Amino acid sequence: MRGALTVSKMMIKNFLLPRGTADILPEEISRWHELEQKARIVCKNYGYREIRTPAFEETELFARSVGQTSDIVQKQLLSLASQKEGDGSNSPLSLRPEGTASIVRAYLQHNFIHAEPISKFYYLGPMFRGERPQKGRLRQFHQLGVELIGPAKQNEDLNLAFLDAEVIGLCVQLLRSFGVKGFKVKINTLGTPQDKQAFSSYLRKVLKEDLKSLAEEDQKRFSENIFRILDSKKKECQQIVKKIDFAKGNYLSDFSQKYFEKAKSALRDLRIDFEEVPYLVRGLDYYNHIVFEISHEALGSQDTLAAGGRYDTLVQQLGADPQTPFSALGFAIGIERVLLVADQPATPTAEVNVFVLAMDEKFLQPAFCLVNELRQAGISADVNYQLGSIKSQMRLANKRGAKQVVIFGEEEMKEHAVSVKDMEHGQQNKIVLNQVVDYLSKIFIKKG
Amino acid sequence: MRGALTVSKMMIKNFLLPRGTADILPEEISRWHELEQKARIVCKNYGYREIRTPAFEETELFARSVGQTSDIVQKQLLSLASQKEGDGSNSPLSLRPEGTASIVRAYLQHNFIHAEPISKFYYLGPMFRGERPQKGRLRQFHQLGVELIGPAKQNEDLNLAFLDAEVIGLCVQLLRSFGVKGFKVKINTLGTPQDKQAFSSYLRKVLKEDLKSLAEEDQKRFSENIFRILDSKKKECQQIVKKIDFAKGNYLSDFSQKYFEKAKSALRDLRIDFEEVPYLVRGLDYYNHIVFEISHEALGSQDTLAAGGRYDTLVQQLGADPQTPFSALGFAIGIERVLLVADQPATPTAEVNVFVLAMDEKFLQPAFCLVNELRQAGISADVNYQLGSIKSQMRLANKRGAKQVVIFGEEEMKEHAVSVKDMEHGQQNKIVLNQVVDYLSKIFIKKG
Repeated sequence: MRGALTVSKMMIKNFLLPRGTADILPEEISRWHELEQKARIVCKNYGYREIRTPAFEETELFARSVGQTSDIVQKQLLSLASQKEGDGSNSPLSLRPEGTASIVRAYLQHNFIHAEPISKFYYLGPMFRGERPQKGRLRQFHQLGVELIGPAKQNEDLNLAFLDAEVIGLCVQLLRSFGVKGFKVKINTLGTPQDKQAFSSYLRKVLKEDLKSLAEEDQKRFSENIFRILDSKKKECQQIVKKIDFAKGNYLSDFSQKYFEKAKSALRDLRIDFEEVPYLVRGLDYYNHIVFEISHEALGSQDTLAAGGRYDTLVQQLGADPQTPFSALGFAIGIERVLLVADQPATPTAEVNVFVLAMDEKFLQPAFCLVNELRQAGISADVNYQLGSIKSQMRLANKRGAKQVVIFGEEEMKEHAVSVKDMEHGQQNKIVLNQVVDYLSKIFIKKG
Repeated sequence: MRGALTVSKMMIKNFLLPRGTADILPEEISRWHELEQKARIVCKNYGYREIRTPAFEETELFARSVGQTSDIVQKQLLSLASQKEGDGSNSPLSLRPEGTASIVRAYLQHNFIHAEPISKFYYLGPMFRGERPQKGRLRQFHQLGVELIGPAKQNEDLNLAFLDAEVIGLCVQLLRSFGVKGFKVKINTLGTPQDKQAFSSYLRKVLKEDLKSLAEEDQKRFSENIFRILDSKKKECQQIVKKIDFAKGNYLSDFSQKYFEKAKSALRDLRIDFEEVPYLVRGLDYYNHIVFEISHEALGSQDTLAAGGRYDTLVQQLGADPQTPFSALGFAIGIERVLLVADQPATPTAEVNVFVLAMDEKFLQPAFCLVNELRQAGISADVNYQLGSIKSQMRLANKRGAKQVVIFGEEEMKEHAVSVKDMEHGQQNKIVLNQVVDYLSKIFIKKG
């Protein structure tokens, strides 16, 4: 037990949000509701269904998918402290830093492969990374993402490139529906896993000479996962990367080249402008073939709004039958970043349509009953139980955005009536108490 | 780096959900969407606005609110491992086990007291407790809750009892709107903090003799927080509790008695049946005056659907000006438990309204373009890029719930047309390709 001094010191403590997190307050919530509503409609139109996975998973799941050597796993996982009670399952757990790993885990655990030839999921929820917080970078942030997973009928199927274009098209459509303008779509291909290997060897060859001029962190990347050098935020590294002649590398197989061409042609069918960026690789281990990124200048240094790509081999890496080739791809959109650039102010909505004023304590009980009847009838209504002058209560009604105010006053109540005031036009009517719900229903409840 | 052997062993690992967590799969999601939609409408009608707080907070916030000696803080907190990097804010963090503490923290941090005389929040999201999982008890579960917080104009205000009745009424209204029937409302009063102290002394007196016949855990409760004995799940303890003559304790002040009577009278005005249960105290430290619990027999041993009460002093304990008396109360509903007893099967909805079949690879490109146009027009549509016989593709269309199927076949395409088949009535029409979107819009997009 704590001593008395400690307790009194604790008494004055003001608790604050944990670093890098945010509250979403009532005045901001309508922007979230609108975005979520639009996301649900657009995803449904594309044939995607929502899935929700837990906030935490086995740490190893993320190491196996995102990559043991990735910054996310090495530096940014927010892990749970191990549980005290010995409950038989003591695998280390971490808050999910992204959505793909959990959804592939769910796909396999619930045997979706036997239920449908292709599974189209979307998700919408909090993700967690122990990053140094900055603009557009929080420790708890929110992503909207889709994942499209199914067995591939054959190993090399050019027609699957339509899905890559569909997924990029869905991402663009979502951003447009959120009111985001002026974003840029960048795409690249990493080819098959074999091509990626050849790409890696080529990079190793051309970067070897410059190795010493790289920062220590980037030198470490050279040996651990050379693709991450292409993602480096260091200026000297970015300049070296810009000099690389990617075409000369010639690491893409015929099939990979055709696949990329087909995906680009399908994107043109969708009238989506894009830029080919040969050094775009994304910081996660699991991608192959098409990767893409959608960025927005207004975001500054953290300018990625959305990113994704194809990750066919991940499904097997997480436990699927190694004999079955898979087609799997998806993306995630950063919701906080969208809200930073979306051209869509919150639509102010009334907190309540009806506000009820009691001019004396003895009218609180009938006011309480009336408010209850209004709410049951589907009309948003509230009442102030702390009383006050008509002026101060009217101010309150205004503040809550009330369109009609019901006043329980001495004179009116003698006739079992109340005054109902239209706050927009100012006129005031005397209404018999047992007809108020009908009267207000006609105003607020749309017919049909 | 891991050795090759370890890697190949890892290859075959199947990842499963962490213990005590669940995925919400696409086939279950419509029940969640419906419940969330209803919750939003009902809460809005009562004048409540949504707030979202982070999944984790400072551990001390929960110790200060829920109670240092509570089971929740002592045994069930899921805490985060301390961060490696020294970032200046090394307060221990835990996943939130309930919603009230975070919302009071947000109320104070964002100065709602200066913005409005009373704040009405609702929240809807995951909560986390490291409990032994069982039916109706998960480590990640979901709660819908409301909190109603504002400064009280005077120290003892009988009219605030209307708010207690409103909050219980809202809880009942929500459960009804979710299709829950046959639930029981139990209420009690703990009185003012002074009364609660007298209640505690009385319990200490009457339980002293029986102390030795209690289980060790309940003996510990006797000294740490005697009210928790009334919550005990142990049979021998429950029998002792049943023998207590609560009325004889006479620990309620005049004001507290009047307050309880007024709240009950307002509940009767709302036509809510309730039972008075003098040993109902709830396992959290922060309650005073009215506490309530709504239970459902069908849930078995974990039968609480919803619970809440008044917690006026908590706001000061978490940092508000000690000179300002507060009125604060709320409740939380367990969503998983509601879904276990709600009389509301999921309404099956079509995954897509239109399914497009290409009978040859060369028709995939026009099919891709048509599907895109349909989606842009707001019609949910999908296409199978892996081809197949007409029979197998029709099966697929059926499985996805398609109401209309568009077929790109050799004969039709000679005339720049497709066949459109109504899956319910079976008739099939030939439609010129550039009129298909119009044709299907007339079927699926409601006018007005």
